[in-house]
Amino acid sequence: MAGTGIGDEFELIARYFAPLCAGAPGALGLTDDAALVDLPPGEQLVVTADALVAGIHFLEDDPPGAIARKIVRVNLSDLAAMGARPLGLLLTAVFPRDVTAEWLEGFSAGLKADIVEFGAPLIGGDTVAGDGPLTLSLTALGAVARGRALSRGAAKTGDGIYVSGTIGDGALGLEAARGALAALGEEARGYLIERYRLPRPRLSLGARLVGLAHAAIDISDGLIADLGHVCDCSGTGARIDAGAIPLSPAARRALELDPGLLRRVLTGGDDYELLFTAPAGSDAALAGLAGDLRVEISRIGSVVAGTKVVLEGAEGLGSLGGATGYRHFV
Amino acid sequence: MAGTGIGDEFELIARYFAPLCAGAPGALGLTDDAALVDLPPGEQLVVTADALVAGIHFLEDDPPGAIARKIVRVNLSDLAAMGARPLGLLLTAVFPRDVTAEWLEGFSAGLKADIVEFGAPLIGGDTVAGDGPLTLSLTALGAVARGRALSRGAAKTGDGIYVSGTIGDGALGLEAARGALAALGEEARGYLIERYRLPRPRLSLGARLVGLAHAAIDISDGLIADLGHVCDCSGTGARIDAGAIPLSPAARRALELDPGLLRRVLTGGDDYELLFTAPAGSDAALAGLAGDLRVEISRIGSVVAGTKVVLEGAEGLGSLGGATGYRHFV
Repeated sequence: MAGTGIGDEFELIARYFAPLCAGAPGALGLTDDAALVDLPPGEQLVVTADALVAGIHFLEDDPPGAIARKIVRVNLSDLAAMGARPLGLLLTAVFPRDVTAEWLEGFSAGLKADIVEFGAPLIGGDTVAGDGPLTLSLTALGAVARGRALSRGAAKTGDGIYVSGTIGDGALGLEAARGALAALGEEARGYLIERYRLPRPRLSLGARLVGLAHAAIDISDGLIADLGHVCDCSGTGARIDAGAIPLSPAARRALELDPGLLRRVLTGGDDYELLFTAPAGSDAALAGLAGDLRVEISRIGSVVAGTKVVLEGAEGLGSLGGATGYRHFV
Repeated sequence: MAGTGIGDEFELIARYFAPLCAGAPGALGLTDDAALVDLPPGEQLVVTADALVAGIHFLEDDPPGAIARKIVRVNLSDLAAMGARPLGLLLTAVFPRDVTAEWLEGFSAGLKADIVEFGAPLIGGDTVAGDGPLTLSLTALGAVARGRALSRGAAKTGDGIYVSGTIGDGALGLEAARGALAALGEEARGYLIERYRLPRPRLSLGARLVGLAHAAIDISDGLIADLGHVCDCSGTGARIDAGAIPLSPAARRALELDPGLLRRVLTGGDDYELLFTAPAGSDAALAGLAGDLRVEISRIGSVVAGTKVVLEGAEGLGSLGGATGYRHFV
């Protein structure tokens, strides 16, 4: 980090990142070559990594704390989709050379908030000062009982298809953050932007779905595309009902003003809700779970034989072929 | 990866990266949200992450296979310094939008060569097409017997200080790759460039140092700086003899032509040899180890009381204060 004006790499790590490994003695204060992690007997390690780049996955002038929290949450959402609980995080960051101490303080504070909220200490990483856009890569480590992880490929014909929360807020929030959806009013726009910036990884729900759900995935590429991933990996088709897709009041209002936005709701990404399948007869258990966790769970369709994802109740939308996040569709 | 001309992200992963997870069923063919890793009973997970950026850590026009192998080896070197054996790798890559299929084939082939050589399958990651320089982040997972990992902070007064291989080749190789050291001749320049591009992670040595060495670190920031890290973390000082620092024939020849290059040898990085300390009386065991593994092990000095790193036998060099990789020195 020589030349950043905010001290060398060691000072930067000591000041902004080392405090984030509290509670993880195996992180060795971020001073050693690698971190040590203990895995309880009978558990498997679950590990995932995602990269986020300014201008692609977040906006250059997003608040630094929100950027930090987004990359944490995107990765924790992948753990949630496997039914895992978080153990720790490794962050590599290529900061622009003109990064300021104020920006780093905001970034570090955002990281800290989520590390505390989700119990996932920072246990390692790397920092570089570069000439390109801010580029972050985060690896999340988690644990799940051996052989019990949820997967994309376990859907069975006859399963119900369910989603948590509401769908489309992430994609509509990105539109709003770019200045669109002006007719929606500030409150609804603010809600959607917040949903885009600060997804909620469904860790508690994912952990409770172990043994209850068949397949699970988090909705990052868009509802239709991610359902397509489940069908591809499971060797099944799916039939979903557009009218059953749960919408927030803000998204519902946006669709009233412009029904064509349904395409964005169905194919936009960044929801980070869970989509899962569960066998017939699961509705009572899922209703209990929804109540326990205070999470909305909605049945949106069924797993069927074949290889196609069929959407019913959206005939006015025309073909979704070629839309963002779209892969195969009839 | 839409817009790269080499297919979408799913096609790219399926073509260039999914073949690299052979032998790791928990990687789930790189198709799921996260990978599963089993850790043998009695072992701890060791995890490290490094970022490499074009123009900083490698040259933009380096062969793509060499770039891939360098980031793998840099990370495996961190595992070696902890005494760990590799379990698997996660790679996030931000490729330039104009990346070609030919470049990706070379990159993938380089990855595959090292995955096979070091037994570290690719188990996850992420790919993005971006506008900045090629930016890679690699997380390496390894395992070590619980409580037996080597650390930087375990040096004791009276220990000998040892290094593997030869020192300074990486830094001199970078000079040569940039066109310097012309008087050295093509063979020696080629040797040094290869050492810069393709470091050798000392995994076998690291694993065998468990129970024998006190402190260990890999030399990435430069001999003096990394010895400084060991002293900082151990609460000790060190005294080293410049004349005992092992040099390759090419580096020795470079120093004959320009004695001032000793500064680069001592403070340049990218050697990825191990520096370790071991108690008095270890010389016979270390000589046996060097013979078994066909690795040169050289004693270069001693751990002493205090907090300073003292270099003897390099009086003509003047102060090293402010040199790259330098931190504290008398």
